[in-house]
Amino acid sequence: MNYGERLEKIRRVMADDGIAMVMFEDCEARRDTTIRWLCGQPSDALFFVSADATLLVPWDVIMAGSFATADAVVPYNDFDRSPVKALRCAAERLGVAPWSKIEIPAATPFPDFENFGRELPEFKPVCRAKGVGEAALFLRSLKDDGEISVIRRAADATNRVIALLEEGVRSGGIATEADAAMLIELESRRLGCEGTGFQTLAAGPSRSFGIHAFPSWTAGPFAGEGLSILDFGLTLEGYNTDVTLTFVRNAGERQRRMVELVEEAAALAAAALKPGADVAETARAVNAFFEAAGFGAMVHGLGHGLGLDVHECPSLRARGPAWKLRPGMVVAVEPALYDSALGGCRLENDYLITEDGCEVLTRSRVVRV
Amino acid sequence: MNYGERLEKIRRVMADDGIAMVMFEDCEARRDTTIRWLCGQPSDALFFVSADATLLVPWDVIMAGSFATADAVVPYNDFDRSPVKALRCAAERLGVAPWSKIEIPAATPFPDFENFGRELPEFKPVCRAKGVGEAALFLRSLKDDGEISVIRRAADATNRVIALLEEGVRSGGIATEADAAMLIELESRRLGCEGTGFQTLAAGPSRSFGIHAFPSWTAGPFAGEGLSILDFGLTLEGYNTDVTLTFVRNAGERQRRMVELVEEAAALAAAALKPGADVAETARAVNAFFEAAGFGAMVHGLGHGLGLDVHECPSLRARGPAWKLRPGMVVAVEPALYDSALGGCRLENDYLITEDGCEVLTRSRVVRV
Repeated sequence: MNYGERLEKIRRVMADDGIAMVMFEDCEARRDTTIRWLCGQPSDALFFVSADATLLVPWDVIMAGSFATADAVVPYNDFDRSPVKALRCAAERLGVAPWSKIEIPAATPFPDFENFGRELPEFKPVCRAKGVGEAALFLRSLKDDGEISVIRRAADATNRVIALLEEGVRSGGIATEADAAMLIELESRRLGCEGTGFQTLAAGPSRSFGIHAFPSWTAGPFAGEGLSILDFGLTLEGYNTDVTLTFVRNAGERQRRMVELVEEAAALAAAALKPGADVAETARAVNAFFEAAGFGAMVHGLGHGLGLDVHECPSLRARGPAWKLRPGMVVAVEPALYDSALGGCRLENDYLITEDGCEVLTRSRVVRV
Repeated sequence: MNYGERLEKIRRVMADDGIAMVMFEDCEARRDTTIRWLCGQPSDALFFVSADATLLVPWDVIMAGSFATADAVVPYNDFDRSPVKALRCAAERLGVAPWSKIEIPAATPFPDFENFGRELPEFKPVCRAKGVGEAALFLRSLKDDGEISVIRRAADATNRVIALLEEGVRSGGIATEADAAMLIELESRRLGCEGTGFQTLAAGPSRSFGIHAFPSWTAGPFAGEGLSILDFGLTLEGYNTDVTLTFVRNAGERQRRMVELVEEAAALAAAALKPGADVAETARAVNAFFEAAGFGAMVHGLGHGLGLDVHECPSLRARGPAWKLRPGMVVAVEPALYDSALGGCRLENDYLITEDGCEVLTRSRVVRV
């Protein structure tokens, strides 16, 4: 991966904002995959970037040796796992001058931020919503060729799993939520993936009314009479897919109507995906479509960007920011309708925005059994 | 569960600190299982507590209807999923007087906290490391009878899975990391669990050197020649177990030495678990034991509390806070040694602190194949 190029982009943002050093943090309470994007370390580390060097402070140094690229590595244990202590050492090693601005993550809790200020009187700790960390998220929304190639492979693996799932349900081999979820877990590894990007949501007819079924899957029945939802994603070399199939068996009239509307909404949304499109407008169009058909607006967003995170920029929400799509963005689009009595129907596929429109990467669909 | 009793305890802390209303937040970026502890809602919600009422603001209202107990429920979508808007409505509905102190979570990012202050000039938003949220975590570390009974059932399920895993490895039915991980996933649901509490770490001999193997499990070999680590936990009605087995086959002399030392360290630590014990001291004793044997101190903590979170108070760390154990605490203890060439050995079991010592709840062990 082009770590050097990415660091250069980050450093341009730092220079514009007068930031001498930036700290990224990935820990149990606050994940930040930008560290993986910048140096390859999959998780549990601090990463410091100055104008001319980087320092990685991982929890597991043996692991960092196999995965990460950094100018220097110091074990987090050397600092009693205190970010303040690690930051002071990083500032020294990277030659950051006193009184310089050092940016810490926007996710830093308020009490911790106060602590940085108290413990580091010789520097100016900065914590901004619209700082270098957010700039990194924006940069990450535009995938480079290396990333697109990985995402394509992740989508191919996902499509193979989708085919197996459909086959399994049709043959009767998949009769429980567990059957579906376990097939995904196993096949993902057989296909060389790191695993699933989030807990598979397999909800049989009695549970598909929930946006996110709880528990995410059980030993209970799947794909029986009514609507069943299967939402999963694979992670390949850190990059995620996110798809949802709905299985329909002996549906009643109103359930069939829900399914048709969701399929039409998916087509309507896909047709709108092209450079320059305002995603909030697209989300509003889908809501209007559902409302015109006598159903309510969607209870969750229309979709979201995909990459090292399952949910990243741009977010596609009716009342969210007016993101304009650009070539290289990868987005999941997931129109859905839910009814506490009839169950739910969701259809989700992943799209790559191209120069003149979009390319659908995944082959998820409504399966009528 | 005793939601009323728990709310009463929280309200006593609020009264002591002059807090008129407290907000808890569980969202994708910041999980907080205290909401489940206080009202049963498993996730994705805001929860407001005043001196005499509660308000739940869930993402999925249908879900909240099945799981939660609150005086009132308002969908998060009614506030465009803005915590500030939800908080203002909660203050009105719960009759919070202007100029009152309203506590928001300690995990609130600094830029968000500034926003609360700006948008709610009529209240005093408070964000403290040692606030009501932390008090709740302390209260949660002492399990009540209902919780202990659930944890016992979770431990029983875990022990059944441990027995199946050992059987599977001995019979050859488990030969890959995937075989082990899939057995755990499937059996957990068969036994009525919500699932696994974290991604199972199944690391065959070539990968067991990592504290947390990455990826967490693969289609590669498990329990072959050398040391294999299997770290997993089950979640039952929200409560978690956390155990680690090590499988040893044809180990070399130094590997056998590592294994013996880890077993002895586990016994040493277990003997120290009783009311009044200082857990940092216990962790230091284990480090001293490993160091006296010519190995380094542990590269991770000795253990941690267990409950609705897999990692909760008290933390058992040599350089951590000097927690004193008390009856009703449940802790996982996980002595371990790692070597980049020889692999790793970790042995983890869960203990309930009793009036005069401890009771081991789980039956994890080193399995010599």
